[in-house]
Amino acid sequence: MDLLFLGTGAGMPAKARNVTSVALRLLEERQAVWLFDCGEATQHQILHTSIKPRKIEKIFITHMHGDHIYGLPGLLGSRSFQGGEEPIVIYGPPGIKDYVEVSLKLSYTHLKYPLEIVEFEDGTVFEDSQFKVEAKRLSHGVPSYGYRITEKDLLGMLMVDKLKEAGVQPGPLYKKLKDGESVTLEDGRTLHGQDFLGAPKKGRVVTILGDTRTCPQVEELAANADLLVHESTFGKDDEQLAYEYFHSSTTQAARAALNAGVKKLILTHISARYQNEDQHTLLSEASAIFPNTSVAEDFSCFEVERHDS
Amino acid sequence: MDLLFLGTGAGMPAKARNVTSVALRLLEERQAVWLFDCGEATQHQILHTSIKPRKIEKIFITHMHGDHIYGLPGLLGSRSFQGGEEPIVIYGPPGIKDYVEVSLKLSYTHLKYPLEIVEFEDGTVFEDSQFKVEAKRLSHGVPSYGYRITEKDLLGMLMVDKLKEAGVQPGPLYKKLKDGESVTLEDGRTLHGQDFLGAPKKGRVVTILGDTRTCPQVEELAANADLLVHESTFGKDDEQLAYEYFHSSTTQAARAALNAGVKKLILTHISARYQNEDQHTLLSEASAIFPNTSVAEDFSCFEVERHDS
Ligand SMILES: [Zn+2]
Ligand SMILES: [Zn+2]
Repeated sequence: MDLLFLGTGAGMPAKARNVTSVALRLLEERQAVWLFDCGEATQHQILHTSIKPRKIEKIFITHMHGDHIYGLPGLLGSRSFQGGEEPIVIYGPPGIKDYVEVSLKLSYTHLKYPLEIVEFEDGTVFEDSQFKVEAKRLSHGVPSYGYRITEKDLLGMLMVDKLKEAGVQPGPLYKKLKDGESVTLEDGRTLHGQDFLGAPKKGRVVTILGDTRTCPQVEELAANADLLVHESTFGKDDEQLAYEYFHSSTTQAARAALNAGVKKLILTHISARYQNEDQHTLLSEASAIFPNTSVAEDFSCFEVERHDS
Repeated sequence: MDLLFLGTGAGMPAKARNVTSVALRLLEERQAVWLFDCGEATQHQILHTSIKPRKIEKIFITHMHGDHIYGLPGLLGSRSFQGGEEPIVIYGPPGIKDYVEVSLKLSYTHLKYPLEIVEFEDGTVFEDSQFKVEAKRLSHGVPSYGYRITEKDLLGMLMVDKLKEAGVQPGPLYKKLKDGESVTLEDGRTLHGQDFLGAPKKGRVVTILGDTRTCPQVEELAANADLLVHESTFGKDDEQLAYEYFHSSTTQAARAALNAGVKKLILTHISARYQNEDQHTLLSEASAIFPNTSVAEDFSCFEVERHDS
């Protein structure tokens, strides 16, 4: 599980940073890639990575501003053109379905794979046996959402040596014990799965926010997350601008990370006004409050580490 | 007047070629840039040129396929974001108005300049004292158009020395003669403007085609043009594929250029299947039939020379 940033700029593309998109790569976990936002030329950025468009299983849109969605029709069309046949699901705020469907229809684009588009408001937007994705509305003038992606805990490994010591031979019983169930042996003994399982692997939590002013929902979405991706359109000295344009500053993001008790903070959605040396300043401003901070660049990659408990 | 190619690929972006767009720069003629097609990331390509988005006065769309239109909403939005206030007019086939308006509306994009969108079918799509633009439908499965851009002839320079020799002193008369009118002097003589004007400057003709199978309309649009921009998705050996996918080959484009009597042929919309050495082959195939051919690359620039008659 890692995060590969495809675009880390704000509002408009610039030479140094494309508009927003980040890929959560779940290759080991489910041989899939989930995209969060898809600004114009996201498919162009992907050409410079190892991501295969057909592996993109889900696309989560934070909000309907152009710098977060204009790359969708092209990416969907090219994925089909390249022979992608696996279904794809897009989750986003109201409007996303019309936007994608009208764009594809008027451009005579006929996808060769099933496309589902789910418009949601607050709550759980996706859940299966492995992952849960929850969304909460932030504060951005237009409906903008943050996502909390929770990986479910994995049961520990079956301790085969301990079972053999207890005189239980390999067979169908093992499967039940591995799944944490209890079984009764022919000799009348009852064994409980959890007595024969190693330490469970705790699931990871990643929080990825849309554009937002600093607001209490950020800390709710990010509580104890392993990794928080927070917009930081402006630096500390431009907090007034950040407020006026419904964005956040470096220091606001860092305070939210600290209050939420996250393990790592990544700043993205950086205004083009900050170049070269300014970017060190941005990092310093945030690190002074929350030391484990990075400022993402296009193609930055961050492993989401497992903190076994 | 020159043509700057912003994207010269077909169907999908590739590392070497972006999807279609070409800028007709009329900086001397009207301090304006006209775009023909606007595939995804055209605004990104523009970042690497000297084109100022606010100078873009008109955008002509050849057809509604995604590789020719998906860059429009982003370009329009960024032009506004950067403070562009001059009006812009988009010309295109039916569907273009809905596409642009729905994309801007759903992304909450409010342009700070007037935007007009003209949906046309065959005929003259624009005319003023300087230029005429005519469109004709080609053969591409979906409505696809070629454009013939005709610069109007400029009258020659007023021959002041000759007027002085004839005893006519500078004054309001000069303006009338310069405009080609006839005037009667106080002494009863009648002078005709054309007798005192140098050779007229003949206007140039540029023909820019949308995607098409080879068809008679190409030669009609390109008749005696100074420059013909013709798609050449495939090479000579893939004419069957070209036919099946409603595209043209190198040799078909060259034969059309020859038959139409154009002065120069530029091939674009090159399939990503042709790389490096293959591109020399493409050029050779066309040049064997029509010698004055170039294969455009992204950022290729071609001056449209004036052939005074
Ligand atoms: Zn944004
Ligand atoms: Zn095309």
